Amino acid sequence: MKLLNYSDKKYTGGLLKRPLLESAALEKTVEQILRDVKKSGDSALKKYSLKFDKIKLDSFLVTTKEISEAKNLISKELRKAMQLAKKNIEKFHSAQKETSTQIETTKGVLCWRKSVGIEKIGLYIPGGSAPLFSTVLMLGVPAKLAGCKEIILCTPPGKKGKIDPAILYAATLVGVTKIYKVGGAQAIAAMAYGTESIPKVFKIFGPGNQFVTCAKQLITKEGIAIDMPAGPSEVAVIADDSCIPSYVAADLLSQAEHGADSQVILVSDDEQTIKKVISEINLQIKKLPRKDIAAKALTNSRAILVKDLDQGMQLLNDYAPEHLIMACKDYKKFSGQVINAGSVFLGNFSCESAGDYASGTNHTLPTNGHAKAYSGVSLDSFVKKITFQEISKKGIRKIGSAIELLAEAEGLHAHKNAVTIRLKK
Amino acid sequence: MKLLNYSDKKYTGGLLKRPLLESAALEKTVEQILRDVKKSGDSALKKYSLKFDKIKLDSFLVTTKEISEAKNLISKELRKAMQLAKKNIEKFHSAQKETSTQIETTKGVLCWRKSVGIEKIGLYIPGGSAPLFSTVLMLGVPAKLAGCKEIILCTPPGKKGKIDPAILYAATLVGVTKIYKVGGAQAIAAMAYGTESIPKVFKIFGPGNQFVTCAKQLITKEGIAIDMPAGPSEVAVIADDSCIPSYVAADLLSQAEHGADSQVILVSDDEQTIKKVISEINLQIKKLPRKDIAAKALTNSRAILVKDLDQGMQLLNDYAPEHLIMACKDYKKFSGQVINAGSVFLGNFSCESAGDYASGTNHTLPTNGHAKAYSGVSLDSFVKKITFQEISKKGIRKIGSAIELLAEAEGLHAHKNAVTIRLKK
Repeated sequence: MKLLNYSDKKYTGGLLKRPLLESAALEKTVEQILRDVKKSGDSALKKYSLKFDKIKLDSFLVTTKEISEAKNLISKELRKAMQLAKKNIEKFHSAQKETSTQIETTKGVLCWRKSVGIEKIGLYIPGGSAPLFSTVLMLGVPAKLAGCKEIILCTPPGKKGKIDPAILYAATLVGVTKIYKVGGAQAIAAMAYGTESIPKVFKIFGPGNQFVTCAKQLITKEGIAIDMPAGPSEVAVIADDSCIPSYVAADLLSQAEHGADSQVILVSDDEQTIKKVISEINLQIKKLPRKDIAAKALTNSRAILVKDLDQGMQLLNDYAPEHLIMACKDYKKFSGQVINAGSVFLGNFSCESAGDYASGTNHTLPTNGHAKAYSGVSLDSFVKKITFQEISKKGIRKIGSAIELLAEAEGLHAHKNAVTIRLKK
Repeated sequence: MKLLNYSDKKYTGGLLKRPLLESAALEKTVEQILRDVKKSGDSALKKYSLKFDKIKLDSFLVTTKEISEAKNLISKELRKAMQLAKKNIEKFHSAQKETSTQIETTKGVLCWRKSVGIEKIGLYIPGGSAPLFSTVLMLGVPAKLAGCKEIILCTPPGKKGKIDPAILYAATLVGVTKIYKVGGAQAIAAMAYGTESIPKVFKIFGPGNQFVTCAKQLITKEGIAIDMPAGPSEVAVIADDSCIPSYVAADLLSQAEHGADSQVILVSDDEQTIKKVISEINLQIKKLPRKDIAAKALTNSRAILVKDLDQGMQLLNDYAPEHLIMACKDYKKFSGQVINAGSVFLGNFSCESAGDYASGTNHTLPTNGHAKAYSGVSLDSFVKKITFQEISKKGIRKIGSAIELLAEAEGLHAHKNAVTIRLKK
């Protein structure tokens, strides 16, 4: 991790550049997979499962037997920890429920909106080195609270054709309807178009590799909604000399271990603090099982010395980090300056891991600078807010002539007439 | 408008098919425009303005002089009507402001979220036969309420290089920062990438033709957010014998006049009602200036006889109309059955025109069946909801061991360590 000085002219502009993702070549491959699944359904899924996951499956649906066995394949302690996480996620997301209030905008003109759960949704959970059951909780809990009726989950099976029992347990804990053993771009295609065995859904959630990300992006063209555009995970820490360098180092490493393309940023007004954090990183990294991945991520990463924390906040708003940890004395004051960030962690004891697992906030957050325009996943992501209006005879008399004028000025006479005909009687 | 019977086997499946949009050929043209504007900025904008809008411009920015003149070029009555619309839109969207509540998910674990306006947004307002100033109000009012700092607007100039004064007046009324005379896919590109004269924004809103729609879809790949995918406008009316056929006909026509590709649907349990509405349509259409457009739209449209309104609601939830008018006696009961719709209009006096202009609800709504997963534009569309957490020493002791277990089970030891190091001290 390199120490850079913000005031140094040579870094201007490029100081917070993210690693560029090249996707054009990938797109052709993914388009082919999408077309194939759309056309051939399950048989295309089988072909790609064999090709990419090296697995031959007769059926994608996880059986009730497999699900009921899962519970006993994980420890009681892990089950309890998941239950605690679920409880906190539920508490935080329940508070996001909107009560429908009728607004009388003009006498006799009542307007309101109502949140209705998206009927059919699909969750994608990647396979790979770690079973991301925490993402099952983060997506499944708000989906259930929102009233989504059909919640399906696709995840690639392991080498023996089985799903990790922790994923199965988490899925049943939150009330997933059906679980399918299929991964990659083909799983996204299956949920977007439907196949003989996998139902079509209206919105798809969840992280994945570049193929999955690209497939999610492409299916939006066909009217399927997705949670948000994805990118490598990232954290930024803003720290002053009140921080505890070993904590900051641990937080930076917890993000760096995600993947070689992760990015971690440290911003501080104190050079000594930066130096202490870097030397703590060098100590702690040695003991990590994923130290090679973390070391690679650290090469994309930077420690930036700023003249004061105001300058640091300006820089970070420009960067728009997915996670922002504020390890500074005056975090209450500086948190008011946050404009662009996915989720913010305040003080020395709010580590990112807490939000990743169990504090209650959602961990599906905008990466890659998307925090400038996107929010993280919340209850909102699983509902549509439908507006309603009920206008009385009196109400239309109050606003009718304004509507007539406006419609006429836009050259839309039938719009005008829909009011005129009602005012006449 | 054809009367079809839902129970008739020959219509199964295809009864509510929408006209298909072909976009592959278009995409290549739009990609070229995007690349060109990204590379050559203003000079590319000038080239395309000359090519598509037949206009040669030295500067895109609307001058303060043009803006101040606009006010006097429209009638006092129209200005007053716009002010009324603005007031109602403001009232309804203000009520969507979220108060930030701190939730203590576990003792010592405080979580909350805060809405922060998207800093820079762009509004696109199409040119063409009608000046859509109402859309300026529908997008500009919530943008301002949300606290967006920079609100720019692009719209193609008319033949004399001028913008319609009603659009200019609406833009100043809501507080648009800058207005630019540029339209089409090149305007979307300008707002997505920025040029010498037009600033880059983080999210782009507004309707447009197929080129604009395609450009908006394509720029999402590069991390620019958009309001929602677009499609032709549509309305569905569910009516029983309590409806007033001339009102229903006027509502159907007000949608049909939007464009030849608009779709209007009438669903009723009463054949006589359908027949009366159709004959009213045939009468009213004759007097409309846009009767040719409306007539074309009616060829895409259907009147469907259902056995009862429950069946009608099922059918309409499957169709997911942008606008749904409930002209039936028991609309209170049946409105509870709405799952998929953009905006719902209840009773005989709630015409769609009211919501299009002045009742207060937003008229930027999900078309083309997108109401299954998308909401219309609201205050939410202009903010990011950032989550915050503040965990005390006690708090991390309460949830720390669960986090350690969960992180370990996911194979993420650095995540675990970020907690362990805090629990140790």
